[in-house]
Amino acid sequence: MKLQELADLLGGTLHGDGSLEFARPLPPVEAGSADLAVAMQPELLGDLGRSPARVGLLANGTEPPEGTLDAWVCVGRPRYALHRLTGALGQEPFVAPGIHPTAVVEPGAEVSPDASLGAFVYVGPRARIGRGARILNHVSIGQDAVIGEDTLLHPGVRVGERVRIGARVIIHSNAALGADGFSFVTPEPGSVEHARSSGSGKVSSFNEHIARIHSLGSVVVGDDVEIGANTCIDKGTLTDTCIGSGTKIDDLVMIGHNVRIGMLCMICGQVGIAGSTVIGNGVVLAGGVGVADHAKIGDHAVVGARSGVMGEIPEKEVWMGYPARPRKETMEIFVYQSKLKALFREVSDFRKAFASFLEDGRGK
Amino acid sequence: MKLQELADLLGGTLHGDGSLEFARPLPPVEAGSADLAVAMQPELLGDLGRSPARVGLLANGTEPPEGTLDAWVCVGRPRYALHRLTGALGQEPFVAPGIHPTAVVEPGAEVSPDASLGAFVYVGPRARIGRGARILNHVSIGQDAVIGEDTLLHPGVRVGERVRIGARVIIHSNAALGADGFSFVTPEPGSVEHARSSGSGKVSSFNEHIARIHSLGSVVVGDDVEIGANTCIDKGTLTDTCIGSGTKIDDLVMIGHNVRIGMLCMICGQVGIAGSTVIGNGVVLAGGVGVADHAKIGDHAVVGARSGVMGEIPEKEVWMGYPARPRKETMEIFVYQSKLKALFREVSDFRKAFASFLEDGRGK
Amino acid sequence: MKLQELADLLGGTLHGDGSLEFARPLPPVEAGSADLAVAMQPELLGDLGRSPARVGLLANGTEPPEGTLDAWVCVGRPRYALHRLTGALGQEPFVAPGIHPTAVVEPGAEVSPDASLGAFVYVGPRARIGRGARILNHVSIGQDAVIGEDTLLHPGVRVGERVRIGARVIIHSNAALGADGFSFVTPEPGSVEHARSSGSGKVSSFNEHIARIHSLGSVVVGDDVEIGANTCIDKGTLTDTCIGSGTKIDDLVMIGHNVRIGMLCMICGQVGIAGSTVIGNGVVLAGGVGVADHAKIGDHAVVGARSGVMGEIPEKEVWMGYPARPRKETMEIFVYQSKLKALFREVSDFRKAFASFLEDGRGK
Repeated sequence: MKLQELADLLGGTLHGDGSLEFARPLPPVEAGSADLAVAMQPELLGDLGRSPARVGLLANGTEPPEGTLDAWVCVGRPRYALHRLTGALGQEPFVAPGIHPTAVVEPGAEVSPDASLGAFVYVGPRARIGRGARILNHVSIGQDAVIGEDTLLHPGVRVGERVRIGARVIIHSNAALGADGFSFVTPEPGSVEHARSSGSGKVSSFNEHIARIHSLGSVVVGDDVEIGANTCIDKGTLTDTCIGSGTKIDDLVMIGHNVRIGMLCMICGQVGIAGSTVIGNGVVLAGGVGVADHAKIGDHAVVGARSGVMGEIPEKEVWMGYPARPRKETMEIFVYQSKLKALFREVSDFRKAFASFLEDGRGK
Repeated sequence: MKLQELADLLGGTLHGDGSLEFARPLPPVEAGSADLAVAMQPELLGDLGRSPARVGLLANGTEPPEGTLDAWVCVGRPRYALHRLTGALGQEPFVAPGIHPTAVVEPGAEVSPDASLGAFVYVGPRARIGRGARILNHVSIGQDAVIGEDTLLHPGVRVGERVRIGARVIIHSNAALGADGFSFVTPEPGSVEHARSSGSGKVSSFNEHIARIHSLGSVVVGDDVEIGANTCIDKGTLTDTCIGSGTKIDDLVMIGHNVRIGMLCMICGQVGIAGSTVIGNGVVLAGGVGVADHAKIGDHAVVGARSGVMGEIPEKEVWMGYPARPRKETMEIFVYQSKLKALFREVSDFRKAFASFLEDGRGK
Repeated sequence: MKLQELADLLGGTLHGDGSLEFARPLPPVEAGSADLAVAMQPELLGDLGRSPARVGLLANGTEPPEGTLDAWVCVGRPRYALHRLTGALGQEPFVAPGIHPTAVVEPGAEVSPDASLGAFVYVGPRARIGRGARILNHVSIGQDAVIGEDTLLHPGVRVGERVRIGARVIIHSNAALGADGFSFVTPEPGSVEHARSSGSGKVSSFNEHIARIHSLGSVVVGDDVEIGANTCIDKGTLTDTCIGSGTKIDDLVMIGHNVRIGMLCMICGQVGIAGSTVIGNGVVLAGGVGVADHAKIGDHAVVGARSGVMGEIPEKEVWMGYPARPRKETMEIFVYQSKLKALFREVSDFRKAFASFLEDGRGK
């Protein structure tokens, strides 16, 4: 790509010779002489002196150190520029058009002639695969499932019975949509119910038989959703577990039965959301957050990494901690925790000072 | 289904015309005019006024608001009724009887003629598949593994070498049973051993080579167990990792080598259990709980969500927190944490008041 | 195996008749009369009295109780002996030599004639499989990926496009290497950026559109690495996500885009490492540890189970807790937390005592 093309692509400002070309965009220390040194963060500018690269991509308001780059492009919102740049250079995963000869499509399934099905794909009875969908090798699609237009399923994705996936969705390898919800009941009140209702802190009622509640619902995924590798989204019990359009979900996330997630949320790696919880629009759950069952997180709330959420978080608030509290409170607790040793010592010193004062019968 | 049939199925009491029929059981706000409004929780009764449904399922001792339902059934233990209702209406996943032509069965394997093997199933040498077992598409079964009668394996399940699975077990998509245990050793004491034995808090011995301890044991799963999607259960080192009959395990759970879990436990999503830990019967581990290696959890103990357990939990106790403590103690700590700011302020005020008192040399 | 062979294999000392044979090595309570009772931990010696086994494996400096074993071998470093013993007795997973007739190898891929490809293996265009590699059933290898010599991929492993895996690597079932990084950007500053920059604890800027940053980089795995079941390692954005040689990674671990992990690390189950974090050589992350993005962990550092790490950990230090602190500080906090109730009471008693003292106007 030529530097002028890069400037056009990113809507950036060209400095120097726009006819210069580059091979790969790389951080300055990894870029070779033919590459584009990407130094949009000011702290990377110093690396340009150690880089053989002759052309670069910088943030507005910055410039390369004297004697480093011959030409460069400056852009306004670096991460958005990265979206455009990587989108222009990214390669699509390979899948041949049409249905691979090894694929198995059960009777009654409808596969759009414009869809691509890779090797060893399995499509169950009455499933429907939309126009332009790309189903890579080793994907399973259960009976009555629906895959929307231009959706991309990576190898090993499992789509359960009756799951409905929208358009332009991307699902990464080995994600499992539509396993049965983890929903059980004991004929008589079991140990958990007992522990909840009893104030004694002791369990005195035991599970002698555990009966399963079957999942009559399924999973519904909106448009433009992305779902990470090995993530699990379980079926609902009576209704469907729902993922709103535009929401992005990372790897190894678990979303329980009946959960409803709104639009344009960001659900980071290893988050776990227990059954029947409702999450609004634009919510951000950082890595490793756990949300209890029947909780409620308001629109545009942000929850910090590894927090444990119970109950309700109001909209637009930033919470964190275990248990999760407003971020400011948790940060205060972290500070106070680190001063506990000093506090215990102070109170102990005090006790002695006061006792000796009382013994003396006077102030000094 | 007719309302009379529903009452018979659930052992409930019919109110009104038992010949009325319904299509799907749904929460009142999602039920259409042909559906059964399921309002067994009292807080859902108010929704009946907004529902076009004419028939419903309620809890004993409640009744629909005037002018809503034409007929309804009342039941005693709502969640158990849900077990029966969903069991009667649930659909089985599709797999054709017999061995799919694309399946590969290695020489020496024994597949019961009553078992069903889906597309792309792989069965290794000397493996045995029991009567009525349903092995869905893309399942791998390793050499010498045993699958019990009427067991159901969903797409992409991996059953390792020598793993033995009981009868009526359900394993969800992409679960991996029988990977090698994470068990390594350094020729000389390594950094972890050093950190454990040294009080200095500094590591001064390093891993220069890491040797693996191979897994000679395997995994044994009892009868009537359910295992969630993408869950991992590793092989034991000399003996087997064991899951007791009737135990239910959710998605994305990790169970390390040599772990022994008793009968009728509930192991919720994203729980992690490190090597050689022993868990009794009827234990409940809520979502995201971590249990250290060589720990011990007594029968019928309950551990709250996201707790970190080390050492031992006595039977029948309810614990939670990081580190896990009896629930009452952890709840107190949570409360005290939220009052730390006030405590620090009080002690500081005190310090000043006492100092000024001492300076004045008198009480007032 | 004969006991003399065992002594030779482990470099141990034989006590008694070396011609005695054993079937399986097992803990004393599980060993039968034909087995080797493995009692290298002193606390297991007492079990020998309850074991029918006649031969055993013990640690140097210990001996069996009178009248139990007929002969035994003593060794110096028990866990290392376990490495050698299990290595000698362990069975390899089955895969027939050559390419299974059901495997699909795309044009342009190069498979060494010495490699073994199992049933339903898929190899994408231009991928290269090295000498002696064993690719078990149901593995997917993406376009341009490279698999090193003698590497072993268990069933269902997904290797993404351009991923490069070294020699003698072992990857367990359903691990996913090379999914796209979880990297997104909003055209205007989004809710997370806002929450980070604002001190208000309120989000006032919302995600109206979320654009993806494509992954131009891939994943590079060194030699002698082991990766657990259902673990995910995502591609880098511009450069590669890197795993150093000799590093061992457990099940259900998530390693984000651009992460660099050094050599000879131990990354235990359910660890999560967010994007662009750098981890040195010889680092140990215990089970369930979470590491934030752009963090840095120095060489040979050890982080305790379920800790939440942000920022930087110096080399050779032992940290733990949420938030992670030096282990000693966190252990102190745990102790102080358990004494908070007493502290609150003491301060409250004090307040009353001081107030009554002031009211009385005197000490006693």
